Amino acid sequence: MTESKGISSAVVAVGDELLIGKTLDGNGSWLSKKLTNLGTPVTGRWITGDDPVAIKQTIMTALERSELVIVTGGLGPTIDDLTRPSVAELFGLKLIVNQSLVDQLRSRFSTIGYEMLPVRNLVQAEVPEGAIIIPNCEGTAPGLIIENEGKSVVLLPGVPHEMQSMFDRSVTEYINKRFQSRLDPILQRTFNTSGIPESLLAEELDKDISRFPSDVSVAFLPGLQGVSLRLTAPFSGGQGLGSLDFCENIIETTLAPYCYSVGKKSIMDSLAECLLMDKKCFAVGESCTGGLISKRITDLPGSSRYFKGGIVAYDVATKSGVLGIDKSVIEEKGVVSEEVAALMAERITEVMKADFGIGLTGIAGPDGGTKDNPVGTICYAVAGHDQVISFRKSFQGNRESIRERAAQAALFSLFRILTNRQD
Amino acid sequence: MTESKGISSAVVAVGDELLIGKTLDGNGSWLSKKLTNLGTPVTGRWITGDDPVAIKQTIMTALERSELVIVTGGLGPTIDDLTRPSVAELFGLKLIVNQSLVDQLRSRFSTIGYEMLPVRNLVQAEVPEGAIIIPNCEGTAPGLIIENEGKSVVLLPGVPHEMQSMFDRSVTEYINKRFQSRLDPILQRTFNTSGIPESLLAEELDKDISRFPSDVSVAFLPGLQGVSLRLTAPFSGGQGLGSLDFCENIIETTLAPYCYSVGKKSIMDSLAECLLMDKKCFAVGESCTGGLISKRITDLPGSSRYFKGGIVAYDVATKSGVLGIDKSVIEEKGVVSEEVAALMAERITEVMKADFGIGLTGIAGPDGGTKDNPVGTICYAVAGHDQVISFRKSFQGNRESIRERAAQAALFSLFRILTNRQD
Repeated sequence: MTESKGISSAVVAVGDELLIGKTLDGNGSWLSKKLTNLGTPVTGRWITGDDPVAIKQTIMTALERSELVIVTGGLGPTIDDLTRPSVAELFGLKLIVNQSLVDQLRSRFSTIGYEMLPVRNLVQAEVPEGAIIIPNCEGTAPGLIIENEGKSVVLLPGVPHEMQSMFDRSVTEYINKRFQSRLDPILQRTFNTSGIPESLLAEELDKDISRFPSDVSVAFLPGLQGVSLRLTAPFSGGQGLGSLDFCENIIETTLAPYCYSVGKKSIMDSLAECLLMDKKCFAVGESCTGGLISKRITDLPGSSRYFKGGIVAYDVATKSGVLGIDKSVIEEKGVVSEEVAALMAERITEVMKADFGIGLTGIAGPDGGTKDNPVGTICYAVAGHDQVISFRKSFQGNRESIRERAAQAALFSLFRILTNRQD
Repeated sequence: MTESKGISSAVVAVGDELLIGKTLDGNGSWLSKKLTNLGTPVTGRWITGDDPVAIKQTIMTALERSELVIVTGGLGPTIDDLTRPSVAELFGLKLIVNQSLVDQLRSRFSTIGYEMLPVRNLVQAEVPEGAIIIPNCEGTAPGLIIENEGKSVVLLPGVPHEMQSMFDRSVTEYINKRFQSRLDPILQRTFNTSGIPESLLAEELDKDISRFPSDVSVAFLPGLQGVSLRLTAPFSGGQGLGSLDFCENIIETTLAPYCYSVGKKSIMDSLAECLLMDKKCFAVGESCTGGLISKRITDLPGSSRYFKGGIVAYDVATKSGVLGIDKSVIEEKGVVSEEVAALMAERITEVMKADFGIGLTGIAGPDGGTKDNPVGTICYAVAGHDQVISFRKSFQGNRESIRERAAQAALFSLFRILTNRQD
């Protein structure tokens, strides 16, 4: 990217709550991703308090580095909301009450039952002269764009959902128009995999990736839900789309046994699709994940169409008593065994009158490990189609990681069976 | 705080992954909290990429504003780790290989089975002349402190657990020694409540708070687990402790019906204490929370000592079939009713052979609401001690918020019964 052609951006977050560590700067992170994808890479991010001197200094520093500065926060109606007057002062602009904003505020308050507009909120109708107004459909603080010496400062509220919808509705369009030919947008496509560690996936894909065009870059992103493979290509007037399709074709066969979704879809989204299409339902009998699998399934609205329910059999008595697992099997094979997991999967299918059942038992730690079953040992099974398939795996990490990885593995094995990819 | 006496700090995070929005700056947030409590409020935070010019510029700007600058990230062994050389250059210091760091690195690698120290890692033994070395017990990158013209720059690795343990072990002590008399430390005490909205809690506490000493400040922090009340007092050579005790005495009676813990303890921690003390156990029959209550209980290691297990009765058939709820009650009263919640609580107590049982049914949305039971309607009950207490509440927010609030409410009502605070 050459200095003269490319355009870079900077992000400033305003708020004392960020400086005392009360709030994480999620806005900055969200904007970084959006701006990078739009083709204006972020060269710096700043976080500053509700203090006019600091706000002015920070925006000035940001403008020295970038032509586009996005500022979030400090547009509210209270005395500690100082972004609007500070920016006006910085550029020597008068604040002028905008009558159409006053009307909007008044009608907004009247719909929620206030006859009068609170006096405090009047400042939210004040606009630095010449500024472009960005409508806020979800709150009272409008956004503002100030153009100065060829550079643009965009002010957005700090409330995440307001900021995000304003950025997506209006700011994206503004940036595209204003900096058009100088933007260097990128395209990304992410393939989500499970059941294979990062290093092995990289190894299996080595040959495929060597055939990629040189402008497509690859990142392996490991997480508790598995490893995601992210391809990035320059947009290049639409050519990038072709590059990504070309690459997807190359890796498709290698990825097939592990890939459960492309883009933002989770394993639950993919499972939901399969189950709804096949008109099947399932149930879960879980021990050490303690409700996590059921919780993740029911995070999705509408999951009652394919999820019957679950039993958290957290102690041995519940496994035998409520799930009806033969005590002699537990005694002979141990409670953490493929045999017990298989029986849990079979029994939950019967008890819940489901088409498929998942059974899971293991040691999430930090205590309870033995020589044969160290912390991280998980046995799980899927019953259905007149068969039971069971697994014994060892997962790394703390209690939370082990439980998340175990839940993911069990859900992934059901997905593989539903898509006829079982071993 | 006067300019001449007080001391302020700044935090710089280095890393391209922060600027593309891949990683949230959790380090900055963590450090902000620590530095504020230590008595050196943070005046600004900066996030910059792996670029020597930007690193130098950013640290320089931070030093203009603060006498203490903490920099995280960019101390690794690869070519994109540029914090060490950039800072050396900024202050005109030579990088000198420190033999004792080389030895430490070598022994670290030998314990994990490497006979040779990888050449790459050698840079991690390079130290700007005169810098103070901060040992890193959990990784290969040592921290560094550079003192220049009365100001201090502290370099720490970006890996959160390494950074945090180094800050707690060494940096805190350094700051206390170096800036001693100029620090303005604060004390905080947080009371966690449930079952009362922020505005009502504030109203009930109005009189109490008016009796607080003027140097104790109060913040109401609403969240999905309830409203926390945070008191902040200046340390003042230990006097602040007395102030907080004094305030706690004043609010104790008013808070009693709602407060489940002080400090970082969750409702699960408090429940675990009560149940272990009373040698009691419980079980959960849940519908729309879909495993969330069981999941939250089993997040805590050792929960098998007081948690028998749960049934996720996600559809009506499971409620009648598996939990054995009388179908006629479901038909007459509706599946979302206090009566069904009460039966679920009773039945789960019996089925799981527990001392107490929680039953919960409701509409988490976004769909499924009716005129009588709009989205957010939750009925829950606690059985035990030969009685059942049931509740009908309406919770606001999206699916996730409603589920979290409902789970919290149900767990809190069990806590109230265990601590004899039921209505």
